[in-house]
Amino acid sequence: MLQLLHFPLCPYSRKVRVAVREKELPAELTLVEPWRSGDSLLALNPAAEVPVLQDGELVIVDSAVICEYLDEVRPEPALIGKTPAERAETRRLVAWFDGKFVREVTDLIWREKLIKRIKDKETPDSRAVRVGLGNIDLHLAYIAYLFERRNWLAGETLSLADIAAAAQLSVLDYMGDVPWDRHPGAKLWYSRIKSRPSFRPLLADRLPALKPADHYDDLDF
Amino acid sequence: MLQLLHFPLCPYSRKVRVAVREKELPAELTLVEPWRSGDSLLALNPAAEVPVLQDGELVIVDSAVICEYLDEVRPEPALIGKTPAERAETRRLVAWFDGKFVREVTDLIWREKLIKRIKDKETPDSRAVRVGLGNIDLHLAYIAYLFERRNWLAGETLSLADIAAAAQLSVLDYMGDVPWDRHPGAKLWYSRIKSRPSFRPLLADRLPALKPADHYDDLDF
Repeated sequence: MLQLLHFPLCPYSRKVRVAVREKELPAELTLVEPWRSGDSLLALNPAAEVPVLQDGELVIVDSAVICEYLDEVRPEPALIGKTPAERAETRRLVAWFDGKFVREVTDLIWREKLIKRIKDKETPDSRAVRVGLGNIDLHLAYIAYLFERRNWLAGETLSLADIAAAAQLSVLDYMGDVPWDRHPGAKLWYSRIKSRPSFRPLLADRLPALKPADHYDDLDF
Repeated sequence: MLQLLHFPLCPYSRKVRVAVREKELPAELTLVEPWRSGDSLLALNPAAEVPVLQDGELVIVDSAVICEYLDEVRPEPALIGKTPAERAETRRLVAWFDGKFVREVTDLIWREKLIKRIKDKETPDSRAVRVGLGNIDLHLAYIAYLFERRNWLAGETLSLADIAAAAQLSVLDYMGDVPWDRHPGAKLWYSRIKSRPSFRPLLADRLPALKPADHYDDLDF
């Protein structure tokens, strides 16, 4: 069975958790707090980050690398696409949410409000949080734009693009920081992925130090 | 023929330029300054970044996505690896240099000293540059560590891991900011990739606003 080291409120860990379930691959999850794990995590991943996937003796790190690996060893259902053009479009959007969205939104809200709190016991930089909250609208509008034109974000079928975007938004939604009411198109898309069985375990996550927003696990939010 | 929009001193553009030549794919290069290109770049890439690859009607953006695409449409020579395990190791190191190295080194040196200068006519934040210069040793030591154990960074053959690492280091080397003398193992590896025909065009790049370090195009540096 696959072994997955993850942190429940880490968006990259969440992306892999959903992908593993969409692929119907059994996996045993182990909760890791990277900042407390020291050498045991470092021995598996020199970058000292989660998620880490172990498939027998093989150790795979970095969420994008893990997702490519899963798609290679279990091609169906295809989560990246079939043709090179489809695959380029899925990967473009994954890079958008894993990179651009993280720099412009997640790092400024989630890292400040959640990670600083549980890791460093520090208060958030409220200016950074404000900038992140200001940046989120453009991304939600982009999701709505894509979803108006396609069945899912990257094309006709659910893909890693949806999973990467929803994983990021889900940790912000835990804190009640996603202005869904201003973006009905993005909300419609999110309610669709939120109701998938692969997504349910994320909605059951609870951090002892921080309760989720009231609507967090509500499928009819 | 492939069309590649690039900026000469952009490490991600350089990664793609080397990959295209290693694949022996003819490509026409167009120089783009992303901060001056406005809507024409935005129409191709909503993230408004280079590199952008055009293959006929198809537009592919994000350097990692472009490299995956090249490996799919032209599998030989393999630049990611053959088995899922080899491919996971190559991609792990690409993610290391494209992500961790950029955050800890390139963004603090290259963005401050070069991009700020040519884009914003601003002077660099010397504190950020110092932090970047302090972080580079760990990465050069890691390159030496890998190169002692393997023929190339990710295994027996040249891969995108080497190309990604060398692309980052090459823009720092243009400014003379790589302490090669402290890291003879990393220097040996770099001299090996630097002497490949695919790498030569990078050594001929010159920015009007900034001359390269004296040893920049010297193969016996």
